[in-house]
Amino acid sequence: MTEQEFSHLDPGGRLRMVDVSTKESTRRVALASCLVTTGADPRATPRPDPGSDAIVTARLAGIQAAKRTSDIIPLCHPLALSHVSVDVTAHPRGYEVTAAVVCDGRTGVEMEALTACSFAALTLLSHLFEGNTGARIEDLALDRKSGGNSGDWGRNVHDDG
Amino acid sequence: MTEQEFSHLDPGGRLRMVDVSTKESTRRVALASCLVTTGADPRATPRPDPGSDAIVTARLAGIQAAKRTSDIIPLCHPLALSHVSVDVTAHPRGYEVTAAVVCDGRTGVEMEALTACSFAALTLLSHLFEGNTGARIEDLALDRKSGGNSGDWGRNVHDDG
Amino acid sequence: MTEQEFSHLDPGGRLRMVDVSTKESTRRVALASCLVTTGADPRATPRPDPGSDAIVTARLAGIQAAKRTSDIIPLCHPLALSHVSVDVTAHPRGYEVTAAVVCDGRTGVEMEALTACSFAALTLLSHLFEGNTGARIEDLALDRKSGGNSGDWGRNVHDDG
Amino acid sequence: MTEQEFSHLDPGGRLRMVDVSTKESTRRVALASCLVTTGADPRATPRPDPGSDAIVTARLAGIQAAKRTSDIIPLCHPLALSHVSVDVTAHPRGYEVTAAVVCDGRTGVEMEALTACSFAALTLLSHLFEGNTGARIEDLALDRKSGGNSGDWGRNVHDDG
Amino acid sequence: MTEQEFSHLDPGGRLRMVDVSTKESTRRVALASCLVTTGADPRATPRPDPGSDAIVTARLAGIQAAKRTSDIIPLCHPLALSHVSVDVTAHPRGYEVTAAVVCDGRTGVEMEALTACSFAALTLLSHLFEGNTGARIEDLALDRKSGGNSGDWGRNVHDDG
Amino acid sequence: MTEQEFSHLDPGGRLRMVDVSTKESTRRVALASCLVTTGADPRATPRPDPGSDAIVTARLAGIQAAKRTSDIIPLCHPLALSHVSVDVTAHPRGYEVTAAVVCDGRTGVEMEALTACSFAALTLLSHLFEGNTGARIEDLALDRKSGGNSGDWGRNVHDDG
Repeated sequence: MTEQEFSHLDPGGRLRMVDVSTKESTRRVALASCLVTTGADPRATPRPDPGSDAIVTARLAGIQAAKRTSDIIPLCHPLALSHVSVDVTAHPRGYEVTAAVVCDGRTGVEMEALTACSFAALTLLSHLFEGNTGARIEDLALDRKSGGNSGDWGRNVHDDG
Repeated sequence: MTEQEFSHLDPGGRLRMVDVSTKESTRRVALASCLVTTGADPRATPRPDPGSDAIVTARLAGIQAAKRTSDIIPLCHPLALSHVSVDVTAHPRGYEVTAAVVCDGRTGVEMEALTACSFAALTLLSHLFEGNTGARIEDLALDRKSGGNSGDWGRNVHDDG
Repeated sequence: MTEQEFSHLDPGGRLRMVDVSTKESTRRVALASCLVTTGADPRATPRPDPGSDAIVTARLAGIQAAKRTSDIIPLCHPLALSHVSVDVTAHPRGYEVTAAVVCDGRTGVEMEALTACSFAALTLLSHLFEGNTGARIEDLALDRKSGGNSGDWGRNVHDDG
Repeated sequence: MTEQEFSHLDPGGRLRMVDVSTKESTRRVALASCLVTTGADPRATPRPDPGSDAIVTARLAGIQAAKRTSDIIPLCHPLALSHVSVDVTAHPRGYEVTAAVVCDGRTGVEMEALTACSFAALTLLSHLFEGNTGARIEDLALDRKSGGNSGDWGRNVHDDG
Repeated sequence: MTEQEFSHLDPGGRLRMVDVSTKESTRRVALASCLVTTGADPRATPRPDPGSDAIVTARLAGIQAAKRTSDIIPLCHPLALSHVSVDVTAHPRGYEVTAAVVCDGRTGVEMEALTACSFAALTLLSHLFEGNTGARIEDLALDRKSGGNSGDWGRNVHDDG
Repeated sequence: MTEQEFSHLDPGGRLRMVDVSTKESTRRVALASCLVTTGADPRATPRPDPGSDAIVTARLAGIQAAKRTSDIIPLCHPLALSHVSVDVTAHPRGYEVTAAVVCDGRTGVEMEALTACSFAALTLLSHLFEGNTGARIEDLALDRKSGGNSGDWGRNVHDDG
């Protein structure tokens, strides 16, 4: 990708929603993840069980947010997403949240996957805060993407703990 | 706060939007923050200047998102926020994003401050991703809150770098 | 309530969002319910268990929709709801959906309770349709309301089956 | 349709927004309907005339809601609807509401047609409630659909009265 | 009102949603208006009759938009509006659109009245465009406001034609 | 375009969201503009500088509004816009606002360009109102469009001043 083909800045340096109308429509996939950590000694903190209502709520909040990404992130394009899934699993320091988004379209779904993760994690936080205001979200990042001119990309996912 | 007075769970263990109608309306303030880091050597990565359009965009996205918190986080109450501000400042590893939210109401604005931070940071990420897919959001947490029965609370803010 | 004090029609017969600014702010409660029926022999139709993800999803969709009532029903006022709960229980012909909404305000929450029921039921239907396009929503109605000038009201809830 | 090809449940039994990216894009049509009944003796109840502002309001609320279906029903895909119409006609027991939705896409528009009907009916109810809190919505169901792998389907529409 | 008490700019010159939490809650009223003109000879242009569906649609679009003002105009506060009405009347050059908004709150409803007018007018335009792409919106302005520290204000409304 | 092929009115004279499913998908472009005037002597009125936060805010509000056009204007279709840009430049009487929208789709983007202009202008007005309640929006109109059966069209843009 060169700045000439795809950029948030017009020649005058001002932000715009870039013109993707001449880009090819391809299958786009993006995966993102983050941690929700409980701060103090996690063994001592009451936390929702991965199968509980609180976790289902978090996963659904992430799915709903993915569909509204362009509504909230100013320069994102409205996209007809074809798949969104969000998972929440136990992690030694709290929970790991992962999101996968698929779309056939002219621009990537990286921001949609990050938005899904972010809102699932915020929803989890809203539950944890009842007992522990020190809970936090860490390490929200893109894990993998494929499709589009810029090709495939992946990071080594976090394995701390 | 006891589980009897304020809880996301009804007696049957099911999630609900808690009844705040008998709580007193007081002035509520919440501050939250996070880092947006550029991954690789930050001195080598092109980044928007704190005064640029990209930063104004991020701050506005955060303000807009705060107002829509109850729309996206399932168990949050709709609140008539009386003030929202979001700041983005340079940090050795990228940017620091901070948000402040004020409301006179029957429930706290912690989630609104975290949502504002989160969307300002995601918007920044959408700009940084043009050159650097490894950018990420770190350490999103509540910094301080006041108002309500549960009293004031503060963490020692992050000073890493 | 007289047509002079509170009406969806102005003196010229045209619809408007009525002026509630001179009405007293009181505690308003509304309960509504409906049935989701599976059409054919309900014992032969696969259905989600009341504790399953599908049911939690339906309950959350109802809670979210209640908060957005004024966004979708043209003449409803935006209200700062203080409580919403939605329940889904087994019924001989399928499921019963009930919703309760509470608000301190100048107008009732009847439409919010009906909207919550309606969206929880539609979400259930979206699951049932995978196996049974004949599922339907029956008997959506207000069950009880209290608060406001027009006083309390209740119907005899449906006990068919 | 088999559970393997299209399902709201992943192999672990958890809800997700299904992946429709490999499904063929075809013309999809769905019709739905319901009754809005006035409860007590309908001849004695004042009701809006089918041509009045109240009826136009109901029809528009249904059209608007159809476009926002994926925003409110958690597992629905965002779709670029190509046609929505909603009709309200007199019925011996009150009103009949019908909706038709058309889309060229990878998934059906059944939920969009039901959502349109449901919100047109709720809007009608909001008018009727001024004089008659016992009004209700009955028999909301899909009438017909065409397009997609699962083929065409129709019910015998309600002719009670 | 002084810049110290109420301003869209913080001391560093950056935009923010101003803090109205210390302002008094008073009854606020705002009236706004605009013209929708049909461009060419208005007698020769087919136009919807003031009582027709097209006009009801425009009025409702304005009412709905007023309720969503803070969602779209970045620095507006969410407000619990207590009344909105929108009128469309014939004018020698096309139509006059007027809006009235009332709220008991800590900040004015000027932007809500202008937003209502603007969306009613845009909706009218969407109808007129079927036959006349030269239709336009003229002279959108505040007509009157009352309530709040800055006192009452009125302009001499447009009487051209 | 004939009324038979494409119309907001069904054969019974009732509004509907027209069926565009049989129309060809082509590249659609629309440009719109308006003036924001400061009323009294513009040289004496304090106004935001074209590069300031207030102007960036206005431009972003316009971009965001364009994406939500079908959400607010009742008979507009949801469209996957591929480009939106909004500019604000100094004008002797205040500011000129212009918007450009591009989409590959079955219906035009005229209303999206007008909506973008309108909301950028309203946002500007919200800033100007701090010092000058007489500011107004003038001459909001379509400037040019291309694509679709009805062919290209342009007006002579306003050069008053």
